[in-house]
Amino acid sequence: MTHHIPHMLIEPVVRAALAEDLGRAADITAMACIDADARMSASFGVRRDGRLAGLACAELAVKALDPTARFEALMEDGQDCPPGSVVARVEANARALLSAERTALNLLGRLSGVATLTRAYVRAVAGSGARITDTRKTTPGLRALEKYAVRCGGGVNHRFGLDDAILIKDNHVAACGGVRPAIERARAFAGHLVRVECEVDTLAQFEEALAAGPDVIMLDNFATEDMRRAVAMAQGRVVLEASGGVSLETVADIAATGVDVISVGALTHSAPVLDIGLDA
Amino acid sequence: MTHHIPHMLIEPVVRAALAEDLGRAADITAMACIDADARMSASFGVRRDGRLAGLACAELAVKALDPTARFEALMEDGQDCPPGSVVARVEANARALLSAERTALNLLGRLSGVATLTRAYVRAVAGSGARITDTRKTTPGLRALEKYAVRCGGGVNHRFGLDDAILIKDNHVAACGGVRPAIERARAFAGHLVRVECEVDTLAQFEEALAAGPDVIMLDNFATEDMRRAVAMAQGRVVLEASGGVSLETVADIAATGVDVISVGALTHSAPVLDIGLDA
Amino acid sequence: MTHHIPHMLIEPVVRAALAEDLGRAADITAMACIDADARMSASFGVRRDGRLAGLACAELAVKALDPTARFEALMEDGQDCPPGSVVARVEANARALLSAERTALNLLGRLSGVATLTRAYVRAVAGSGARITDTRKTTPGLRALEKYAVRCGGGVNHRFGLDDAILIKDNHVAACGGVRPAIERARAFAGHLVRVECEVDTLAQFEEALAAGPDVIMLDNFATEDMRRAVAMAQGRVVLEASGGVSLETVADIAATGVDVISVGALTHSAPVLDIGLDA
Amino acid sequence: MTHHIPHMLIEPVVRAALAEDLGRAADITAMACIDADARMSASFGVRRDGRLAGLACAELAVKALDPTARFEALMEDGQDCPPGSVVARVEANARALLSAERTALNLLGRLSGVATLTRAYVRAVAGSGARITDTRKTTPGLRALEKYAVRCGGGVNHRFGLDDAILIKDNHVAACGGVRPAIERARAFAGHLVRVECEVDTLAQFEEALAAGPDVIMLDNFATEDMRRAVAMAQGRVVLEASGGVSLETVADIAATGVDVISVGALTHSAPVLDIGLDA
Amino acid sequence: MTHHIPHMLIEPVVRAALAEDLGRAADITAMACIDADARMSASFGVRRDGRLAGLACAELAVKALDPTARFEALMEDGQDCPPGSVVARVEANARALLSAERTALNLLGRLSGVATLTRAYVRAVAGSGARITDTRKTTPGLRALEKYAVRCGGGVNHRFGLDDAILIKDNHVAACGGVRPAIERARAFAGHLVRVECEVDTLAQFEEALAAGPDVIMLDNFATEDMRRAVAMAQGRVVLEASGGVSLETVADIAATGVDVISVGALTHSAPVLDIGLDA
Amino acid sequence: MTHHIPHMLIEPVVRAALAEDLGRAADITAMACIDADARMSASFGVRRDGRLAGLACAELAVKALDPTARFEALMEDGQDCPPGSVVARVEANARALLSAERTALNLLGRLSGVATLTRAYVRAVAGSGARITDTRKTTPGLRALEKYAVRCGGGVNHRFGLDDAILIKDNHVAACGGVRPAIERARAFAGHLVRVECEVDTLAQFEEALAAGPDVIMLDNFATEDMRRAVAMAQGRVVLEASGGVSLETVADIAATGVDVISVGALTHSAPVLDIGLDA
Repeated sequence: MTHHIPHMLIEPVVRAALAEDLGRAADITAMACIDADARMSASFGVRRDGRLAGLACAELAVKALDPTARFEALMEDGQDCPPGSVVARVEANARALLSAERTALNLLGRLSGVATLTRAYVRAVAGSGARITDTRKTTPGLRALEKYAVRCGGGVNHRFGLDDAILIKDNHVAACGGVRPAIERARAFAGHLVRVECEVDTLAQFEEALAAGPDVIMLDNFATEDMRRAVAMAQGRVVLEASGGVSLETVADIAATGVDVISVGALTHSAPVLDIGLDA
Repeated sequence: MTHHIPHMLIEPVVRAALAEDLGRAADITAMACIDADARMSASFGVRRDGRLAGLACAELAVKALDPTARFEALMEDGQDCPPGSVVARVEANARALLSAERTALNLLGRLSGVATLTRAYVRAVAGSGARITDTRKTTPGLRALEKYAVRCGGGVNHRFGLDDAILIKDNHVAACGGVRPAIERARAFAGHLVRVECEVDTLAQFEEALAAGPDVIMLDNFATEDMRRAVAMAQGRVVLEASGGVSLETVADIAATGVDVISVGALTHSAPVLDIGLDA
Repeated sequence: MTHHIPHMLIEPVVRAALAEDLGRAADITAMACIDADARMSASFGVRRDGRLAGLACAELAVKALDPTARFEALMEDGQDCPPGSVVARVEANARALLSAERTALNLLGRLSGVATLTRAYVRAVAGSGARITDTRKTTPGLRALEKYAVRCGGGVNHRFGLDDAILIKDNHVAACGGVRPAIERARAFAGHLVRVECEVDTLAQFEEALAAGPDVIMLDNFATEDMRRAVAMAQGRVVLEASGGVSLETVADIAATGVDVISVGALTHSAPVLDIGLDA
Repeated sequence: MTHHIPHMLIEPVVRAALAEDLGRAADITAMACIDADARMSASFGVRRDGRLAGLACAELAVKALDPTARFEALMEDGQDCPPGSVVARVEANARALLSAERTALNLLGRLSGVATLTRAYVRAVAGSGARITDTRKTTPGLRALEKYAVRCGGGVNHRFGLDDAILIKDNHVAACGGVRPAIERARAFAGHLVRVECEVDTLAQFEEALAAGPDVIMLDNFATEDMRRAVAMAQGRVVLEASGGVSLETVADIAATGVDVISVGALTHSAPVLDIGLDA
Repeated sequence: MTHHIPHMLIEPVVRAALAEDLGRAADITAMACIDADARMSASFGVRRDGRLAGLACAELAVKALDPTARFEALMEDGQDCPPGSVVARVEANARALLSAERTALNLLGRLSGVATLTRAYVRAVAGSGARITDTRKTTPGLRALEKYAVRCGGGVNHRFGLDDAILIKDNHVAACGGVRPAIERARAFAGHLVRVECEVDTLAQFEEALAAGPDVIMLDNFATEDMRRAVAMAQGRVVLEASGGVSLETVADIAATGVDVISVGALTHSAPVLDIGLDA
Repeated sequence: MTHHIPHMLIEPVVRAALAEDLGRAADITAMACIDADARMSASFGVRRDGRLAGLACAELAVKALDPTARFEALMEDGQDCPPGSVVARVEANARALLSAERTALNLLGRLSGVATLTRAYVRAVAGSGARITDTRKTTPGLRALEKYAVRCGGGVNHRFGLDDAILIKDNHVAACGGVRPAIERARAFAGHLVRVECEVDTLAQFEEALAAGPDVIMLDNFATEDMRRAVAMAQGRVVLEASGGVSLETVADIAATGVDVISVGALTHSAPVLDIGLDA
């Protein structure tokens, strides 16, 4: 198993989603049409080519409603799924399985969608040294899971929140009166396990930042030509992150400039769902 | 104010999103670079043409971190925003505003994204009698808000969960031994304020359903020709919902068949975010 | 098993009730007087004739404190229990069982009380076509369970909340300037899976409502003679609900008028507990 | 203000009740029929003679949905309300007020119902030295509020949970091999701020208990004659509590025996709601 | 098993502590360096002489992350542990065990620290009739567990909160206009299962309190000579508690005065952790 | 204001602590002895020399029970308080203030205790280049606050959890088959904003680690002589952290070796409370 996230981080999300769907009266269709003791077998099938992420969500959703359910994973997170792939088989109480179906698919489809889009970006930069990373533009409540899905797609994670790294942006620079004083204040504040990144908008700012020596410099909306110059000037002394206006069309050119990391907000804020269904 | 959702339903989502972003150490960049008492003015600006939804999320995010913040809405949910629109102005403690920025934008952008995509579908069927509706393919934890955004986009809401209407699908039909017994079991179970909808896959099933008299029949993945026949056969005795494989390219043709409602999963599971930013 | 409610909806209520009873120091009497490893067998016995509802609450309460407990149900929800009935046998850690006893009995007794009172109303209208339904006058926090108990008693459920059906009352009528415009606004707002009910106080209002065509009309505090007239005028085109001042003494006469549904607030707001005890 | 309970203990109950009623879509009737900015004045009126308890619940419910609401209490908890009493006036956003109405009334009616029934028992024993007390047979989730309502009705509170006093019952006696060893184990375990009460079923047990010297002895289902003997034997050395089968018909006779406290489960498990309404 | 606390009271604390440590990305060191399926055996070893408390916390922490973990307790709460004692052996998924290690040790070390310090005070008063008790100066969120640890150390518990006993302090006395009226108001308010304690600062106040007859009198910062006088004056009619400025140096002298109970805030507010480690 | 932590991170802790103390019946002493409308002025006074941290906890505690309370801070977090310092004045409802007192003091005293102990370590290394840092040996539930208190004391923060930096310890090294492969696996896994630290036990391990190039090397339980050698070998290429067995007696010698950071578990796991009281 290459990719892993503790169930303890998934379970509250799954249970909240189930509760949201069950409401106050629970699944009245199942209660009306399915015998209470009926059991049912089904499989989770992928309809379109994609990268799998979040299979444990499906398992936890079914087992939350039927602890006796059997769930057999046939694939694992991080694997590529051609259309028609069966990723898991499940046998459970029929009411429970049908009640959990939508919650399972909503999470599995969304996370696999993120992984699939990440994979596309990673493939687009293959051969370059650039890594694809995410942003904090995640779905409220799902950050841990969506960042996990980015890893399943082959990406690496940027900050998980406001508290685990320093990222100096234009407003901070303005408040400090320049890039250099901003980086110096950051360095003085940061503990020895905190990295400092500074966003710059121009090559002039980049030079000022380079002199101040942060761990990472973010080149925000740089033309590729300017990125190339920045790479040359940096001489490997600092990690360079390209950011802003990255698309599947442009990402290869950006990677070719020699930057180390390319951050893509769309990975989490605009990934279409991967079409996965439950087949009886 | 045309569209409205009680703050009580929004606030837990906003606070959970802020907590997720603040983590354990809070915004260390702001603590390093911004004076504790500094204040700041900024405005929320829309970069691309869209339909606004979720402005209260932005307001609540800022005020959760600075109760003294002033937030002036210049537009309201459900309005069209041309690129460059300023939707709100805010004045607040600088650290608080910068810490709340991403949470505010994540929610506002996502909900406006849903509203904007819904608007596109609604416009595409303008002139027909068909209404655009959503599905349960929503983001876990955000169903109430995303369904509200669908309303802001001009759509109407389908079921909010498993418990507020009966929707008989293929598995229920199989368990009951046919469309008719399934509808009869549903009718017998349902209280007098619960509607019964039945999904059918073929015209033969449709006829069987029509005879049993549910409130709504869902035509799942019907060819438009078959939809037209179903409309003719129904003679207005039942609400007809078209479902499955609906896209912006196909929705007008579907509407032209005379169906009453068209459900579109993409409204909530694949809407790209609307690009909104905070401008100092 | 005729009646069913997912454990996921019961468990938070049971655990909160246990936490409320255990407080900070837990069961100090059991700690003082019972050996930590002692085990104990007992049975849940019904002292007065009634209808059973909520047996799973008792099971979950005991198992929450002793996951190794064995709980054998001898009857099931929705069954009639003559005095002296043993509804379940339990074998568990003695401290755990004694600590869970009151929580188990409080829930089981209350829900069975609701089911028993509902049964009395249902029996009183037997032979008529009228169904007994509940209201939103439920115990805060227990709506899902109490409405389930109403079903166990043979009743059907009215709205589960403010959001799953439209119920136009006098204040809404006043705000809209009449019954007809109120119903029209409701129809325009409601999605295709939402029923619209309108309360009327007089036959004149009833006629106005009938013309506007809601799904259900509630006859509020009508004399039985007026109910009969309303039934005659409706000619089966609309569901009629009688409401207000319904008691076990009057309900048969109301049912005899031909109304479809009779709502009874007392089912949930004033049902006496059913006397059930734990016998060692 | 004679009676008081901190808002911090009430607010979570009120907010949970509102959330339960608003569901996912909120008050769709109000959204359809009431303008978003409309305001409304109304008053809370008592329809039947009773004792008021829980007025703060009504206030908090309205203000949770409209923080700008004005709520003017005209009476206070613990006062007697003749039919027709107006207990409070409120002016608020109309949607908010109508959405909060049922939650406010459910809590206010239930708590006032408990207070009213308690008052009846207290009046029935007036002139004797006996005090009326409650039990742990409370509504799950509402124990703090219902015990407060008992105080508003003139009663005093028994244990709040399993952890704030020791109450030895038959199963504990059996486990310890007798009343005396049970009391001795309890005494040895209890801290210096914990009272020890022992339940006895017979006069023989009573004598054994008396010798062991608990703080309180509960006479469970004693005939009044036996209670009288117990009172004589106790000579004021121990507090005597009568319990079991107490009704409004029997309570005066029980009080006349000279017992100190009479516990009545019905105060909280079977009190009918007090009829209170919101009048526009 | 002498000491016991229900898992239901421990589990929320353990899970919250794990969540606090796992954050959003979980244990990235374990993910990087340990194979997902690797298993590991280890033992919990005590490095310094102490008294064990909280072993169940360690077990629950490991099992929360790996439900298949095997946890074998070799000692139990309340036992004395010489340096080098192995208190439990565990076999579990290696990632899970390493992720849970710090949470397990933080709770186990803290609670054992409280028990160890309590033991020291209890030993210091051995031979006297005095008992050592705690205060409400506990760690926010851990009161139930820390008071349990006090019991494991041989102490008894004082109040668990503001609500389970009356403790009249100087501000209450001032508000009531004297010790006697304060005690009288307390008596009138308190139910029959609530003890009343009154704090006094001088012998004069003590005499006034003694006359009013509370259950317990707290001698606050009394000189030992004054304590001895109070003991003589009380003649066993009231429980006497010494409080204020108690240390391991002074506690034996205080106990020798004949007071019944000595309360020590340091037991919970300043106990050093007991050094316990996980040894692979 | 030098030190700052958002109220949103403090408030849940404060409210949980109040709820823990109020229990189900709230402050029965205040209810018995203090008039409901009485008001009271008091001040928070420091009894022993220390460093202030957590003043906002006191303010939030009082205001949670009385939103109309006035709280005037006279000092701020991070300031030194000589004995007798008055740090804040408060005027509030008397019941509310007395009910909040212990919660306020428990948090303020504990956090100020952490800050005061940190200050002692920081002072002990003054003049060296070493910084004092904390560990993950914090109180469950209070990590964010205790780490904040460390900052108020002049220290810097180590990791906030398992997820914001990689810290390779002996078990990870063993699993990877050596220090070098462990560091390499960590580097490959870590995103560009994550620092990698490796713990070493011997100079041999140190050399191996140095070659692999982590960001930080932790010298665990090194003799000061070995620390000095490691400093010499590192030549400033890596941050060096001394850990293990650090006390106020030894810390100056450790700092003199030239290490960059010294981590001290006692800062949070064994800091005695700072004695602060509320004076009427």
